Amino acid sequence: MNIPYILYLCSRVIVILALLLLLPLAVSLYYRDGCLLAFLLPIFLMLGIGPLFGRKKPARGTLFAREGFAVVTLIWIMISVLGAIPFLISGTIDSFTDAVFEAVSGFTTTGASILPAVEGLPPSILFWRQFMNWIGGMGVLALVLALAPFEKDHTRGQDGTRGSDVYIIRAESPGPIFGKLVAKLRFNVQILYIIYTCITLLEIIFLLIGGMDLFDSICHSFASAGTGGFSVRNTSIGYYDSAYLETVIGIFILLFGVNFNIYYFLLTKNILGILKSEELRWYLIIVASSVLLIACNLLSVYESFGKSLRYAFFQVASIITTTGFSSVDFNTWPTFSKGILVILMFIGACASSTGGGLKVSRCIILVKTAINEIRYYLNPREVRSIRCDGVYVEKSVVSNVSAYFVVYMIIFTISTFLLTLDGGHSLETCFTATAACLNNIGPGLDGVGPMSNFCSFNDFSTWLLSCNMLLGRLELFPMLVFFSPTAWRK
Amino acid sequence: MNIPYILYLCSRVIVILALLLLLPLAVSLYYRDGCLLAFLLPIFLMLGIGPLFGRKKPARGTLFAREGFAVVTLIWIMISVLGAIPFLISGTIDSFTDAVFEAVSGFTTTGASILPAVEGLPPSILFWRQFMNWIGGMGVLALVLALAPFEKDHTRGQDGTRGSDVYIIRAESPGPIFGKLVAKLRFNVQILYIIYTCITLLEIIFLLIGGMDLFDSICHSFASAGTGGFSVRNTSIGYYDSAYLETVIGIFILLFGVNFNIYYFLLTKNILGILKSEELRWYLIIVASSVLLIACNLLSVYESFGKSLRYAFFQVASIITTTGFSSVDFNTWPTFSKGILVILMFIGACASSTGGGLKVSRCIILVKTAINEIRYYLNPREVRSIRCDGVYVEKSVVSNVSAYFVVYMIIFTISTFLLTLDGGHSLETCFTATAACLNNIGPGLDGVGPMSNFCSFNDFSTWLLSCNMLLGRLELFPMLVFFSPTAWRK
Repeated sequence: MNIPYILYLCSRVIVILALLLLLPLAVSLYYRDGCLLAFLLPIFLMLGIGPLFGRKKPARGTLFAREGFAVVTLIWIMISVLGAIPFLISGTIDSFTDAVFEAVSGFTTTGASILPAVEGLPPSILFWRQFMNWIGGMGVLALVLALAPFEKDHTRGQDGTRGSDVYIIRAESPGPIFGKLVAKLRFNVQILYIIYTCITLLEIIFLLIGGMDLFDSICHSFASAGTGGFSVRNTSIGYYDSAYLETVIGIFILLFGVNFNIYYFLLTKNILGILKSEELRWYLIIVASSVLLIACNLLSVYESFGKSLRYAFFQVASIITTTGFSSVDFNTWPTFSKGILVILMFIGACASSTGGGLKVSRCIILVKTAINEIRYYLNPREVRSIRCDGVYVEKSVVSNVSAYFVVYMIIFTISTFLLTLDGGHSLETCFTATAACLNNIGPGLDGVGPMSNFCSFNDFSTWLLSCNMLLGRLELFPMLVFFSPTAWRK
Repeated sequence: MNIPYILYLCSRVIVILALLLLLPLAVSLYYRDGCLLAFLLPIFLMLGIGPLFGRKKPARGTLFAREGFAVVTLIWIMISVLGAIPFLISGTIDSFTDAVFEAVSGFTTTGASILPAVEGLPPSILFWRQFMNWIGGMGVLALVLALAPFEKDHTRGQDGTRGSDVYIIRAESPGPIFGKLVAKLRFNVQILYIIYTCITLLEIIFLLIGGMDLFDSICHSFASAGTGGFSVRNTSIGYYDSAYLETVIGIFILLFGVNFNIYYFLLTKNILGILKSEELRWYLIIVASSVLLIACNLLSVYESFGKSLRYAFFQVASIITTTGFSSVDFNTWPTFSKGILVILMFIGACASSTGGGLKVSRCIILVKTAINEIRYYLNPREVRSIRCDGVYVEKSVVSNVSAYFVVYMIIFTISTFLLTLDGGHSLETCFTATAACLNNIGPGLDGVGPMSNFCSFNDFSTWLLSCNMLLGRLELFPMLVFFSPTAWRK
């Protein structure tokens, strides 16, 4: 283990988190909501402790893949605990377990809440919840790397990052393949953060045009950008009952669910790169067909096709991007519509987006693996490879995706099973609560439907679901490696 | 396509099925239940048509793997339609769709029924349902091969079978690896059928000792042997309310869920072969731990631990072996117990047993694949193989198991989704109905719980579930190959 470098990273993250807390502090000052201490104390604490870990970037040493994984997990656990402090000091949440759950849910962009109601809470606390969604979406280590001071040195690349930093970004960035846009990792991360910020600003403007007030617009744009799904309203987006706002948010979360490389292609006018993207194509096909099917099915519930289409579009966008906003109580929808939503929960958004779930690209590879297997039985001698975006997918990637799916299903099964230990919940509640947390969505069905929340679970289940959210956000292996003793041996 | 040989096989199956129908005919004669015609007509029909297909075993030609798969599927569809005729003629079931469902359920040893009540039905019809469970358990093509006349010829082996017959047996026999006991395929099948018959007879004797009448004993032993789960009582085994009978049936279905090769090892005193079997070890561990967990959980429902243990044991045995008998309405059990049962539905019994599901051996390989994948991230350079029963598992088998799981989950998801189209059923009903059919169990939860049945589904759903039962019994690929156009090209 390269302890000095790991400590240095921790120190950087703590300092940056302290700086990020200045924003909710400013909100608290502006609204005079009495939560100054809730932010000032952790800021001082973090600024005091942070630099102790490691002030200067260590000159030597590289990270192994497993170390990269372990450090990312360590840092995500650390920020979850630190992020929970304002909830505890402000008295918004009494229990440590619940406060960490809320922070994990924020950073992992899940959006599941243990708060029965949010409308009475201090604005700065609300802002912090939403801001966590925004920070978590692109990743906190990516932010550290994007902001890293430029220092030239032999073991680092021209942009100040090391070769092994790619492990860290890979561990934090979702999807089966990590696609580098430019040779320099740091610029890569900066480009993504700039795109991220610009689209967020654009959404704020569009929401303001629709009549949403500034505070709500900023908050909901943060939650959209991270595909987090926290809201400052008890009934989520349903509060506004506005077709315009639902359409705007629906479109923006769909945009945030797209592979961010697409935007870079757009900026560099690489239209071919966009057209070749099978993932984008399937993502749009899945969204369009789900919206149509649900809209037809909802005709029996709502009066008009227009209304059905509106609700169907918003909910499909919210679920496939794993945001978790709701405009109506979809828990009362017919089984067919709920069935589609549950399937979308597992499919998730595109790779290298801010969304969770299995990711469309993994699903494509899984379906092609299945087709290949049938072909194998038709003609065992013929060797077939899997093509994506017009190029062959490496065999190791294909087998990793299958293995990922196996690990994912095993974790999903064990988690659901452990959740049934918490008496009084239906199978549907346990199943969808696990699905909602592991896929970083937020609401599930039945007992954890959009009009319910996660406060009915006991402490064990709450920790379990927090674990699930982290597992889902970091795509399983970083956490599994972190908790395996071998990772920590020399 | 080797059409002459395929026609010959069809002809043999039709004739043997006609002969098998003599047994329920005899029952009808004995009980004078007025169902003589229901059996006589199909017998004459089949004896008349059967030999037309191909009277003599064609001398030349071999089968490709895909042809073996296609013919097995063809024959299973054929016997399902033929097996449904007695239901239609006797007037027990009016609709063709439902009659085929019942026959598919019988032959695939699922045990799901569209009959709301069975106790008033003619004894011969009841007997036929149970007998179908018995025939389907070991497989109808295995029976054809076991009874094949001994003819010596150059293209065949010494035992009268061809080299390519192994494809047929492999397609019909469940499990990731087809383990041949003896060099001669025909003897292999004969040995298995003899073991099967002996254990069935033993169960009849044990049930008679427990006070069950002869007819019920034979019927329930048939359903146990095939791990089918049809019953001649409306409340299944719960009707007798006898701890002795539940224990006997529980033990016997567990025995039928064991890999039959184990019994051959037992006969040949190959104790090492038994001890080495990881599948058997895990099967017993899973059963024991599930029973204990459910028994503890049921303490809140039943008065004593003894009673909880009794019901837990019977239900765990019934579900993991995919039999589907019930002694109580487990649909009313706590979520934790139901959760365990749902997991057992997917795990299923051992390979080369009469049980369904994913099979314990596949689950072992899947878990080991998952562990290997975590190890890969810990040390990418180290190449690790998977060992089972002390020997290395071929790479192709490991990747086939992963691919099988992917295909299985895709089919499961699509089927559940299509089932939600049938309005008025809950997600739990659709989910467990698909699980119960694809894994050849019988009852599920909620709307298809042990005290309910499958008659509330519409025709489309009924055909879909019939398809699922065949997919599950033949382990997906034979049917998928059958329905792919490439299989039928020259």
